[in-house]
Amino acid sequence: MKYFDNASTTKISKSALDAYISASDYYYNPSALYKNAIDSKKIIEDARSFLVKYFKGDKNSTFIFTGCASEANNAVLNSCITRKDKKYIISASEHSSIHNTAKVYQEKGFNVKFIPLKNNGSIDFNALESELDNSVALVSCIHVSNETGAINDIKRVVELTRSYSPNAMIHSDGVQAVGKIDIDLKDLGVDYYTISAHKIHGPKGIGALYIKNVNKFKPFIIGGGQESNLRAGTENTPAIMSFKVAVESLDKENFSSFKQAFISNLSGDYYLISDENCVDNIISVCFAGVRGETIAHMVESKGYLIGTGSACNSGTKINRVIASIVPKKYAEGALRISFDADVTVKDCEDLAQTISNAVSEYRKTLNR
Amino acid sequence: MKYFDNASTTKISKSALDAYISASDYYYNPSALYKNAIDSKKIIEDARSFLVKYFKGDKNSTFIFTGCASEANNAVLNSCITRKDKKYIISASEHSSIHNTAKVYQEKGFNVKFIPLKNNGSIDFNALESELDNSVALVSCIHVSNETGAINDIKRVVELTRSYSPNAMIHSDGVQAVGKIDIDLKDLGVDYYTISAHKIHGPKGIGALYIKNVNKFKPFIIGGGQESNLRAGTENTPAIMSFKVAVESLDKENFSSFKQAFISNLSGDYYLISDENCVDNIISVCFAGVRGETIAHMVESKGYLIGTGSACNSGTKINRVIASIVPKKYAEGALRISFDADVTVKDCEDLAQTISNAVSEYRKTLNR
Repeated sequence: MKYFDNASTTKISKSALDAYISASDYYYNPSALYKNAIDSKKIIEDARSFLVKYFKGDKNSTFIFTGCASEANNAVLNSCITRKDKKYIISASEHSSIHNTAKVYQEKGFNVKFIPLKNNGSIDFNALESELDNSVALVSCIHVSNETGAINDIKRVVELTRSYSPNAMIHSDGVQAVGKIDIDLKDLGVDYYTISAHKIHGPKGIGALYIKNVNKFKPFIIGGGQESNLRAGTENTPAIMSFKVAVESLDKENFSSFKQAFISNLSGDYYLISDENCVDNIISVCFAGVRGETIAHMVESKGYLIGTGSACNSGTKINRVIASIVPKKYAEGALRISFDADVTVKDCEDLAQTISNAVSEYRKTLNR
Repeated sequence: MKYFDNASTTKISKSALDAYISASDYYYNPSALYKNAIDSKKIIEDARSFLVKYFKGDKNSTFIFTGCASEANNAVLNSCITRKDKKYIISASEHSSIHNTAKVYQEKGFNVKFIPLKNNGSIDFNALESELDNSVALVSCIHVSNETGAINDIKRVVELTRSYSPNAMIHSDGVQAVGKIDIDLKDLGVDYYTISAHKIHGPKGIGALYIKNVNKFKPFIIGGGQESNLRAGTENTPAIMSFKVAVESLDKENFSSFKQAFISNLSGDYYLISDENCVDNIISVCFAGVRGETIAHMVESKGYLIGTGSACNSGTKINRVIASIVPKKYAEGALRISFDADVTVKDCEDLAQTISNAVSEYRKTLNR
């Protein structure tokens, strides 16, 4: 099977798995006082310093390690959404761990505003600007959409927010951005930034949250004082070490030839969301009059694994992000193709033709 | 170095690590729709069913997988502590992920009552009974204390609570009980039960929460609908598989000869907390007039790694559980010795003598 669903999750690399295995010898509890435990702690602190440096964090910033990116995203909302007299701004393209959590706060009576997207999947800055005011306590805008690959101009989000809403905290979910576009956290100016290992050939069960100013952060998981009292739970030393190796191994593949090869071999009545504003490794395309799930299964039988909207959305049928930006007749036929470096141009050409043929074949059966 | 700090964390076993490695091939996102993803999902569901069966869960009960036991404990409080007109009962021996989280709720104005312990470290049932009434919405009582090894009679906690507080949810943290005493969740009758992999030679970064009735549980990490909408975040398939293998490998070692060998070789002015009501793999002993940390370092230089109270309590100096049950002159000299099956009777005898000698030597320097 050829795997074209890397935005959903990736296979752990040999180097990341080897790092996990070798760090398993450092099993000692980093909170203990003996030398072996201090060695475990050093591995964690080295990884933390590495992430701050790699992603160019601010002077007093840090990363805390979490059990997943969804936890990190939940932690940001838990820390920031505290008062009913404040406004909380959430882009319409947020990952479900922001979107659905924000919905829960909204149901509890918090003033949560969702900002619509432009047709290419990026945030509508006019709509954002019209909501920004002194009462805003949080703006959360995903860096690269997991659904469409659309890149949001986070620096502009920060500049706009700082000028209208000087007290707001600004969060960006960078899970799909890591390894795909340059990330300079100090330059972006965000207060919080979420990253994940399993989307970049690292291990599952480990994410990290960039925190610019720890004094403003209220912990989400409370307990034994680990992570400088910012996130409780015995540290997952092997996964942290493996996460570091996965980031070290990032080589910013150029996927543009793959994207071009795929797009130029599509045919039929389709709506291509992913334009030049999107990362090259995620292509979101919707076919008219078919269900994405059906096409994905047909394509699977030809040896390709592709996504139908976000697999992060376990079991749900309607894709809210896609539905908000494409004409209705295309909304149900959403497919998400996401590459890693293992594909070839030929694979991409073949896949586009296979998908187009499947759609054509399926529509024929419908018209019979 | 000989490792006597297994209550803090354990080394992952070869079989659990092998399971992690082999399950890494099932990297597909369990929420995706293709067959490979469904295979990943099956691994997770098999592990879940296995845990329910192994721990004899109630008919409609389940386990959800979490990033750590601290997350599971936080999730229980998040689900249960919702109203200021209710009472929340927390034993004084709870793990810091319950104790410190409950303290935060108390500071927010919730009515949290901490129930004191008897001298052997187990809950004082008279004190519990006097707090139980119709307003109680939660009782949380650890099954085996991570500090002292004291076993709480959870069945009696449940019976008492059900008779006085019919609407209360009952939680027990079983992290230190797994593999040490029999666990029959249906018989115990609890609503929630927390377990962890890394205390039983499984991987770090994975815990699980038993939920008797999912309809009464409010999710803690919200997002993409994973774990039947009960806990968001891409599932950590390799760690879940490895957790299952760690539980399968439990063989309920009999540690009583080790405990006896250790205790009978102690000398000096010490206070032994761990009596016959405690598990045999954890020994909590306090020496008068010395600091536990100092003794632990002296013993380390002789080749033994031991604990000083709970290593889960990163960086804190005072051990609240120990301090609440031992006379003041012993409180600072707390040591925690915790075995796994790799030790020998001779190791235990030697360690007890080494500790006793270290205390004696140190006290001589103090008296000089």
